[in-house]
Parts: sequence; C-alpha cells; structure tokens
Amino acid sequence: MSSVRDRAMMARAIQLAWRGRYSTHPNPRVGCVIAQGDRIVGEGWHERAGEAHAEVRALSQAGAEARGATAYVTLEPCSHFGRTPPCARALIDSGVARVFAAITDPNPAVSGRGLAMLRSAGIKVHEGLLAEQARRLNPGFLKRMTTGRPWVRLKMAASLDGRTAMASGESQWITGPEARQDVQRLRAMSDAILTGVGTVLADDPALTVRRDQLGDIGAATEPSRQPLKVIADRDARTPVTSKVLRGGNVHLYCAAASVASARAQDLAALGVGLTGIAWTPQGVDLGELLDSLGEQGVNELLVEAGPTLAGAFIRDELVDELWLYQAPVFLGSTGRPTAHLPLERMAEKVQWQVLDRRQVGEDQRLILTRR
Amino acid sequence: MSSVRDRAMMARAIQLAWRGRYSTHPNPRVGCVIAQGDRIVGEGWHERAGEAHAEVRALSQAGAEARGATAYVTLEPCSHFGRTPPCARALIDSGVARVFAAITDPNPAVSGRGLAMLRSAGIKVHEGLLAEQARRLNPGFLKRMTTGRPWVRLKMAASLDGRTAMASGESQWITGPEARQDVQRLRAMSDAILTGVGTVLADDPALTVRRDQLGDIGAATEPSRQPLKVIADRDARTPVTSKVLRGGNVHLYCAAASVASARAQDLAALGVGLTGIAWTPQGVDLGELLDSLGEQGVNELLVEAGPTLAGAFIRDELVDELWLYQAPVFLGSTGRPTAHLPLERMAEKVQWQVLDRRQVGEDQRLILTRR
Repeated sequence: MSSVRDRAMMARAIQLAWRGRYSTHPNPRVGCVIAQGDRIVGEGWHERAGEAHAEVRALSQAGAEARGATAYVTLEPCSHFGRTPPCARALIDSGVARVFAAITDPNPAVSGRGLAMLRSAGIKVHEGLLAEQARRLNPGFLKRMTTGRPWVRLKMAASLDGRTAMASGESQWITGPEARQDVQRLRAMSDAILTGVGTVLADDPALTVRRDQLGDIGAATEPSRQPLKVIADRDARTPVTSKVLRGGNVHLYCAAASVASARAQDLAALGVGLTGIAWTPQGVDLGELLDSLGEQGVNELLVEAGPTLAGAFIRDELVDELWLYQAPVFLGSTGRPTAHLPLERMAEKVQWQVLDRRQVGEDQRLILTRR
Repeated sequence: MSSVRDRAMMARAIQLAWRGRYSTHPNPRVGCVIAQGDRIVGEGWHERAGEAHAEVRALSQAGAEARGATAYVTLEPCSHFGRTPPCARALIDSGVARVFAAITDPNPAVSGRGLAMLRSAGIKVHEGLLAEQARRLNPGFLKRMTTGRPWVRLKMAASLDGRTAMASGESQWITGPEARQDVQRLRAMSDAILTGVGTVLADDPALTVRRDQLGDIGAATEPSRQPLKVIADRDARTPVTSKVLRGGNVHLYCAAASVASARAQDLAALGVGLTGIAWTPQGVDLGELLDSLGEQGVNELLVEAGPTLAGAFIRDELVDELWLYQAPVFLGSTGRPTAHLPLERMAEKVQWQVLDRRQVGEDQRLILTRR
C-alpha cells in the first residue's frame, strides 16, 4: 500500500506539523505535503487557531501542480465548517488523486467523514501510515476528544536520592540551566500549568513562559500565548500579590464553600477564573478537575506541583507522562521527597516504563509512563 | 613517538589484560603483545597470582620471533624476583628491540626499575601510551600501592524516588535479573565485599559469587577465588548460623572491647578473622578499616551495605565509585532511603560526576564519582 517514498513524505509532514508545537492550541498540530511522485510541490502546517489549516497552505503553495498529485496529511482532513472551510473540500477541488492520512480525527464532528468525502469524490484514500508518530504529535487533543480530559504531564526535578529540597524547604536550582530551558519548552507546549497553593505560598512562582529562556526554537512558529495558570487551592488562600497573578490568565479551583469567601472574591475581581469543585480528605477531586480543564479546551496539562499534589496524581493513576529531571547530586536522607506517596507493601510499588531517557546538560531527563 | 599501529597494539594488550578481571588478585591485571611490525607474534595476559606473568606468556608464544620485535605491556615489567623471575630480564633475554609500557608500576619494589633495566640493556623504551585506559585496569592495585587503601566501590540499588526498601524492611528484587547478574560480576571483580551487621541480621546475605549467575564471561579467566567477606560489627553480634559464614573466608571488624566477647570467640573458633578497631558515636572508623583491608592485600573493595554504613562512606568522602542501579519504580515517600545522610543546607549537597551511564535490562546503572 505504501512505499518508502510515501513514508518519507509522511515523515516530512509530521516534521512540518511539529513546527506548530508552541502555537496551534487548542487545535491539533497538523502537517501536509503535496507531491508529484518524488517532487514536493507544496508544504504546509497549521500555525495558529483561526488561521489556515495545513492542507490549505500546502495546496496554496502547490497551485495547479496539485492536480493528480498525492497529499500526505498527519490527521484526517476536516469535513465541517469551523473557523475555516472544510479541508476535505479544498483537497477535492484541487484535483489531487490520492490522499494519505496518518490517523483519523477523533473529533466527533469529523471522525471518518473527511475521508468519506474524499472517497466519494473518487480520491484514493490510505489510512494509517506512520500512525504512531502522528499520534505523538497530539496526545492531548486525541485524549480530550475521546475522554474529555487533558493529557497529563507531571514534571519533577529531583536528586539521585529522590529529593527535591532540603527539610528546611531550601530548594533553588537543583538542576542545571539546560534542564531549566527544557522545562520552559515543555511549558510552552502546554495549554495549562497546574500547581497547588502550597507551592504558590512557598515559592511564589510566576509559571510563565519566558521567550528569552526558550532559546532557538528553529523553524517552529513563535508561541502564540501563555499557558493557562491553574491553582488548586481549597480554601482560596492565594495572595492577591502572588506573582502567578501577573498578566492574568489564571484559573483557581477551590472547594465549593470557598467560592464566596472574601479572598476568592478579591481574586475574581482581579480577573481570576473561579470554579468550586469537590474536595476530599485526600485532597482535590482530580477527576473532576481534569474534566473541567478538558471543558476549558486544555489538551496538554503540565503539573508543576509540590509533593502533595504530585503524589495525588500518581496515587490516582492519572499521570500520562512523568517527566523526571535527575540532577547528579544527593540531597541527603533528610531532604523532602519528590512526591507524597505513602506505600506500605512492595506489591503497591509504582512501575514505570521508560519512554525516553536523555542527557540534558549535566542532568538526565526521563520520560516515564505507568506500566 | 607512537603510531596508530602502536596504539592498536596497546589497545589489544589492554583487552587481553581484562581477561584477568576475575582472577589476578592480589596481583594487577596485565596484558602483553609482541609484534613484528603489523604482525602479532605473541600474546599473553596474567591469569592468576603465582602463575606466569603476561610478558612471559607472550614471549613464550613468540619464541624466536621475539628477536627485534616490539613488546607492548600495560604495566611496567617487574624487575624483582617475586613468585616468578623478573619480566624485564625475560624481555631482555628474548632480544626485543622496543618496549611500550602504558604506565609505570607504583609498587615500591619496581617503580621505574623495570624500565631502567630495559634501557640499560639497550632496548628503546616508551612510556605513557594509553595510560588512562591502562590505569582503569587496576584502580585498586594502583591506589593501594600509593595510599595503602583499597579502591572503594559503593553499590546501591534504588528506586527512582531514592528508596531501597519499604518502611517495614520489605525489599527483595527491586532491580531485574540483568542488574543482579551485573552485581555478581562486580562482586567477582572485587577482592572483598564489606557489609554491616545490620544487613547480616536483617537480610542474612551469603555475599558470595555464584558462578552460574555470572553468565557467559567470554574469554575471561574463570574466577580464582571468592572475595573476602568483611563485616563491620561493633559488638560482635553476627550469629554463628549466618549464611555469610558458610564457606569461611570472613573477616569481622569489631570494637576492641568486643574481641574477647563470647560471640567473638565463637566466631573465631569457626575460622572468622577478628580485628578490633576504633569506633566513634558516628560508627566504625572507616579510615582505620580501609588501612587494615589494604594491609590484607585488598585492592578493590565492594561495599554492599545498608543506609548507615553507605551513608558513612559518602559522608567521609571515601567512595571512589558509586555504582547506582536505578529500577524504574517508585517505592513511595515512606520507603527507606538509600543512605543515611542527614544534610541541612543545600550547600552541603553531594555532587557527583557521571563516569558511565547504561541500561542494564530494565534498570539503569550509573557509575559516579565525587566531584
């Protein structure tokens, strides 16, 4: 069904799609290549929501050369009028003879209809080429469309002996500058960053993407917005002077009973979004929190939290990817643990599968998923 | 001074020397190549103390072809009569024209005299070729000859969150079978294995090398003996039924006051070596312990101990290499730490340099040295 050439073309389309890694949200990252045999006649990728889709950009570059050509798209072309006209229509109108789509669109408004439109117009359609790589482009979009919840990345920075800070709380700069830049890029890829009020009170983080700290992003489109800053704060204790409030774009989840509190109302007056949700003795109801973030269009959630919230995500098996930065140091046995995770028996141990392991400056970055 | 050919020949000599990794102690690992230009006419390595040295074996293989040849040896040839006649003499008698020695022998009985003997016989002598790689063959021998103490490898097996066991002590099989085989090989390379009485009482380990668990050792010479088992046991509490006592070959360090105790005398009656040394409120005097092991001819010491002894070695900066096996699991924040190492301020953190990092089955092995 597919040749080496077809795979090379799809790989190029995936590469193009990655250029939108900091900018397409809440839309998926999509790339498209139009080729006449070995010759690429059009390339496109989606840059920002509301702007042209990948297929339209590639077709525009191809012009009349699209006729009889093959189109390679990383995601099924849309069949509906959204903010732009349907791409399936544009492909049909261009006269392309074949379309390779890596995966179908899980969006209920599309889900196979785009490919059906193409087929009924007489275009040869192939599905599934480099599907796994294409899925990796949009784990959050795909998960949200099918479950209503964002893809959860839990980030931790720890010593080799599993500590994040001294007992006193002293914790700055465990990892090196390369790891910190890597985290900035991770933030820039995320739709939202979640932390707990404990971290806000202890560290007063800004939780913003600082463009100058991203370094050279190559051919990628510039970040189009800051991730939403999300705070889990049962009693609405976030101080109105917190750095996290600067620049707005903050959503606070508190217990239903705290929504009407004076502090909560002060925060709302500053533009902070407020939602009351369930809280148990074990902490915030993370399922409800994720459902709510999904409703807000959050595809990829980055959790940068203290041991309590981090431990809760692991305990509830809600971590899709653990990004663990390990600094080559020991902070000692009295240091603070990476996650509050009381386990009694070896049988309860949390088993991870290593998806990626690489050196980042002097530190090591592990990407882990629950086994 | 040296050509690509010379470096290749010395690299081969180093490779040959490694064949003695499980068998030469307390002698150093040594390899030798005799070559006529590009053609190797003799190869040898030291197999076991009391048996032929590397040079003698290589010369014996070369026979008359040694005349006018070049000899590559990983360590300066000996100049004294030990258990065998001096190798420098054998090289001279063979008629070799040139000798490359990677490093000089730090043994006060040799230290340059071997090379001097060769030079005074008219042989061209070159020192220092691949010296760093040659040093790595014998870190323990070189350290003991210059400081009187063994090279210290501290082995730890821990989870990614820095735990070795549950709070209850439950701990079996954190790492996988490949890591356990790797540890068997590490033990087989060691002259002695040190543990604390706490580990003897809690886990009752045998601390032996099990040949069937070493797997395929390739061209290496079979292990020639079990490493000495060393127990730090202030009050001489090691039970006479402990597995560690099976097969003998045990040395116990206790407080001077405990040497005459009933248990100590029972252990001595079973053939256990007994030495009384200084003990402080922080534990055994590790400097004195290492001096004593050095006197016993221990080149490479493997520390396989619980958090107390492991922490003491780190605290006293006596670890030459930390071998850290990390299993891709979390054991939780209530688990036992890898090392008892109370640190108060970030400035006290222990900084490691990563010498080697590799996958061993599902686990990762890090070899670290103090920065």
